Amino acid sequence: MIIVLKPDCTRVQRDTFIAELEDTYGVAVNTWVGTQSTVLGLIGDTACIDIDNIAANEIVESVKRVQEPYKKANRKFHPDDTVVTLPNGLQIGGEKLALIAGPCSVESEAQITEVAKRVQHAGAQFLRGGAFKPRTSPYAFQGLKAQGLDLLNAAKKETGLPIVTELMSVRQIDLFLQAGVDIIQVGARNMQNFDLLRELGHLQTPILLKRGLSATIEELLMSAEYIMAGGNSNVILCERGIRTYETYTRNTLDISAVPILKKISHLPVVVDPSHAGGIAWLVEPLAMAAVAAGADGLIIEVHNNPPKALSDGAQSLTPDQFDHVAGRIREIAPFFGKSL
Amino acid sequence: MIIVLKPDCTRVQRDTFIAELEDTYGVAVNTWVGTQSTVLGLIGDTACIDIDNIAANEIVESVKRVQEPYKKANRKFHPDDTVVTLPNGLQIGGEKLALIAGPCSVESEAQITEVAKRVQHAGAQFLRGGAFKPRTSPYAFQGLKAQGLDLLNAAKKETGLPIVTELMSVRQIDLFLQAGVDIIQVGARNMQNFDLLRELGHLQTPILLKRGLSATIEELLMSAEYIMAGGNSNVILCERGIRTYETYTRNTLDISAVPILKKISHLPVVVDPSHAGGIAWLVEPLAMAAVAAGADGLIIEVHNNPPKALSDGAQSLTPDQFDHVAGRIREIAPFFGKSL
Amino acid sequence: MIIVLKPDCTRVQRDTFIAELEDTYGVAVNTWVGTQSTVLGLIGDTACIDIDNIAANEIVESVKRVQEPYKKANRKFHPDDTVVTLPNGLQIGGEKLALIAGPCSVESEAQITEVAKRVQHAGAQFLRGGAFKPRTSPYAFQGLKAQGLDLLNAAKKETGLPIVTELMSVRQIDLFLQAGVDIIQVGARNMQNFDLLRELGHLQTPILLKRGLSATIEELLMSAEYIMAGGNSNVILCERGIRTYETYTRNTLDISAVPILKKISHLPVVVDPSHAGGIAWLVEPLAMAAVAAGADGLIIEVHNNPPKALSDGAQSLTPDQFDHVAGRIREIAPFFGKSL
Amino acid sequence: MIIVLKPDCTRVQRDTFIAELEDTYGVAVNTWVGTQSTVLGLIGDTACIDIDNIAANEIVESVKRVQEPYKKANRKFHPDDTVVTLPNGLQIGGEKLALIAGPCSVESEAQITEVAKRVQHAGAQFLRGGAFKPRTSPYAFQGLKAQGLDLLNAAKKETGLPIVTELMSVRQIDLFLQAGVDIIQVGARNMQNFDLLRELGHLQTPILLKRGLSATIEELLMSAEYIMAGGNSNVILCERGIRTYETYTRNTLDISAVPILKKISHLPVVVDPSHAGGIAWLVEPLAMAAVAAGADGLIIEVHNNPPKALSDGAQSLTPDQFDHVAGRIREIAPFFGKSL
Repeated sequence: MIIVLKPDCTRVQRDTFIAELEDTYGVAVNTWVGTQSTVLGLIGDTACIDIDNIAANEIVESVKRVQEPYKKANRKFHPDDTVVTLPNGLQIGGEKLALIAGPCSVESEAQITEVAKRVQHAGAQFLRGGAFKPRTSPYAFQGLKAQGLDLLNAAKKETGLPIVTELMSVRQIDLFLQAGVDIIQVGARNMQNFDLLRELGHLQTPILLKRGLSATIEELLMSAEYIMAGGNSNVILCERGIRTYETYTRNTLDISAVPILKKISHLPVVVDPSHAGGIAWLVEPLAMAAVAAGADGLIIEVHNNPPKALSDGAQSLTPDQFDHVAGRIREIAPFFGKSL
Repeated sequence: MIIVLKPDCTRVQRDTFIAELEDTYGVAVNTWVGTQSTVLGLIGDTACIDIDNIAANEIVESVKRVQEPYKKANRKFHPDDTVVTLPNGLQIGGEKLALIAGPCSVESEAQITEVAKRVQHAGAQFLRGGAFKPRTSPYAFQGLKAQGLDLLNAAKKETGLPIVTELMSVRQIDLFLQAGVDIIQVGARNMQNFDLLRELGHLQTPILLKRGLSATIEELLMSAEYIMAGGNSNVILCERGIRTYETYTRNTLDISAVPILKKISHLPVVVDPSHAGGIAWLVEPLAMAAVAAGADGLIIEVHNNPPKALSDGAQSLTPDQFDHVAGRIREIAPFFGKSL
Repeated sequence: MIIVLKPDCTRVQRDTFIAELEDTYGVAVNTWVGTQSTVLGLIGDTACIDIDNIAANEIVESVKRVQEPYKKANRKFHPDDTVVTLPNGLQIGGEKLALIAGPCSVESEAQITEVAKRVQHAGAQFLRGGAFKPRTSPYAFQGLKAQGLDLLNAAKKETGLPIVTELMSVRQIDLFLQAGVDIIQVGARNMQNFDLLRELGHLQTPILLKRGLSATIEELLMSAEYIMAGGNSNVILCERGIRTYETYTRNTLDISAVPILKKISHLPVVVDPSHAGGIAWLVEPLAMAAVAAGADGLIIEVHNNPPKALSDGAQSLTPDQFDHVAGRIREIAPFFGKSL
Repeated sequence: MIIVLKPDCTRVQRDTFIAELEDTYGVAVNTWVGTQSTVLGLIGDTACIDIDNIAANEIVESVKRVQEPYKKANRKFHPDDTVVTLPNGLQIGGEKLALIAGPCSVESEAQITEVAKRVQHAGAQFLRGGAFKPRTSPYAFQGLKAQGLDLLNAAKKETGLPIVTELMSVRQIDLFLQAGVDIIQVGARNMQNFDLLRELGHLQTPILLKRGLSATIEELLMSAEYIMAGGNSNVILCERGIRTYETYTRNTLDISAVPILKKISHLPVVVDPSHAGGIAWLVEPLAMAAVAAGADGLIIEVHNNPPKALSDGAQSLTPDQFDHVAGRIREIAPFFGKSL
């Protein structure tokens, strides 16, 4: 941590401040007197120092971190890739590209089972489907809830596909555990629901953690850190587009986040091209780009009848369209070190 | 709702689609054939129609809403200002400018009581203080939790100031009710924690709802709508800065949101200049601007010793600085139809 | 164009307004009376109507365009791909992936010639190099200017590679024409320098038009329209990252812009992975993603000694690194309908 | 300037790098060995060092500036406020609040003269009006050009009000000087038209420099630095809203920029509430907020018949509305150290 002092700070103020820093945080302090400002360098573990407290001192002009504030999610301390492995042996983060597909919302047994069979046939190894739905409007369809989990399990029984579904509240954890959800999704709007993250840290179920609407890459890793700090290291990161001024797409897919997350963290990274663009015809080029940028997997919305979908119809592929996209992924994945 | 059809859609497709719309949503459909496209206008209550479902139809090029999707928060249907009134008669949204002040975190009885007395003396009518703290890092101070609520109550007993404090999880609701929290704050990171909003809709306790880090004005009102749809109409909106590319300030205070929210909604609007800028010396000019733009109140962080604060020290005023700011507010408020 | 009237507008006001619209713009007006608002639909050519003038009318609540405001750049009116062809037969927009490479700044004959030979050997068909440099600081190196153009020509003589270089001002047009610059680049900061765009519209030299730092896709196309309206239809669009709140990268590559521009316009689209990320190691994954998303070409910064580069060293590849990236592009391009 | 080295860099690499830095830039280098990284601190004048060149070195992890890269615009080196004074004695930046008003576009002698008289009567000391108009569409009205300058002069003769008008190109400079334009405006889209800024640096005419659509505060000051570096220190900064994801307003007024620019620079700061919001009814609250935040002036669009305006009608006040706003400004200015 580097602290720039104000030009008019006195020697006494400076020395008092340095003594305080050494005392409070157990760090060594290196002083460097420049022509215009004096700079302090803190040596030791500064990840737990609150940068705001330092900045609040009247002689401080600015404070900058040198070390990343995340540890368990940091590749520096865990050089090897984390591969999340399900009980049935399926993996996310290994050589196999993970393909997660299914409808935005679970709507009926017929619907979820039909979609499950179709996406499995096309190559998907995981079934996604929303039982509890976060909706901007209180008047919109909120999901089938517990019944939705049952229907997902029916589809799982039929196909063997493990289930990925979103949990919206700490109150649903027991239900999700009883239902045997294979991968618990934390949605973008809950990425900084810290109470929820902390609880999920006590499970061993893999967590698919979506990047918040305007979360930085560092904030995404800090949220992963919350889960990992509790003991659950099965975290899968998901880039799903960020909010920008551009209105043509629902969000702007931050494709750079994929190679960056792979470089600075050891956690697997999947991409959601459906939510990123919000438009069905954009799913294919965005999925291609994600694989080319090094993603470990894709999560894609597929519905047997998009115009009748109870949510997110505009971005859902039909099973036929998904067949095509999955075929393309299969073709190109080997050029990027993956197979489908 | 206005639906633009693709240029190549056939008359049969169009007629089938119109029949479906009338059937499914109970609306009348007006057709308007332009030189390049055909446009459909839906007449009736379209607030509950999911725009995505419409967009998912293969003959639809784009869909646009004409009506706002919020109703209970909409001034069109409730022309008079909502004034939130506490049992002791204190109001937010009336002629009196609401001044809410206190430390970011409650740290000790001495601290909270001292700050409470000082801010009360300066003119604050409400005491804020965090017991449960949402922190980006799992390693940062997370608040005194239940004990923090007790200390707030001690300060309330001493001063009579009603308490405003943040609730982070549905699991804390009972505790907050038992503790008699006067105004429950929903933080920016929980603005779209819909499970939480729904539960708060069943209370009568006033809710201070902070705008999310990158929430639109419409999304803020939709979150208010969640609470109001459940029966709790005591919602206070809070502008606290939005995320932009500018890095000098922590967030960018969207000052326009104040007059806009006042115009399109009937709910009271307060501004948080402390979190918006993240810098103590910016609090005064931003507070002035907020009052000048028509805010119903301000929520300001005050700490008796900012450099020793356990959180957000860099943006906290000292009690002396707050005396000055409150004095300035008192001077200018009457020019904007308020008094302190 | 669709105009929503205010709920309280009278029938007389409405009829007067409609008569004015028909009179002023020669359009037919369709009236549709909804339960809450009245909506007017304008039939005819509305591309030249200023939306602000309509919005300024006191009875208007909001105005929305149905038609795109660009025509010459619009695929609807020009369904076939534009392929920009140089006198020597080289093309951008056809089956061949265009690879444009070279240093940020031209620094010396030895430097530019060496880099030109190396990138040519690796597969680049065009040489880029800055002679006039837009720099944020007046104290930074501003380019070799006219001498830089001479050195580019020396490298062109040596290698036969056509030259792509940035023009910063209308005053440089004659110089660029005399120097025989093959493709004139308009930088991001000049994307809305309308006086410049208009002048470039009178040339036949191809223009590489970079998207502005925070330009929308529509604004980029409107700037292309400025050039095309003057008679120069040789416009190449360039996505080079947009400004967002994320600070890890210099800009955020908007990968979705590639398929979108290809769909709604007929102009060729190239991607600049060097400026998008601002980091040399990100160039490869972003270049891969760009090809996978359907780009017609790439523009990549290569320097023979990046740490000694007079500008943008941090994002420049060495010739060896470029060899590797070009080799990867060659491998994957055929899967996306292109060859190198 | 602070340079963080990569953890795996060797002592020899480090020493070579340090020698190079001292040699190339004439700075002293301070080395500080931390537990995880080694940090170098550069002592001396680093404002002219290109941060990218440093970052390009293979042993460098990150580079951060401690000093601001602007000097002439920096309050640290010029503690006293700059007050821009016109030949007739009128000032911007002093005790008097500068009120600049007039139509977006000059349309006719009758129009500009009528508006000039009305705004003068209401208290404006400067007349604004566009003769050359930057328009997103090549098909929109582009201004009366040279004739517009004549009409502005006619209005100036009638009223004595000095003229503020936008210059879009270096080619217009002579025309503007001949026309005796009192204050030359550089529009948001030209804020980084460096060729133009450099030329304006050779004049003595005051420059009203508008912040770019997504320019940072530092970039705005760097553009002022370009002008000042040439010898023209009569620069007036203008905050006019920045681009964000919020779509209710055309731009988001960054009200914090006002006190920040006043603190870190000595240049006067004016606010444009008309362009910031893009909505006439927002002008009053935003103007109030600007004055309350410490602005030195306001630039407001006024048109005698907004619905018939050739540009920007939706954000123009009528003369009567401006009378009201100017009256409110007069009332509140004294509370913020200004008078009208």
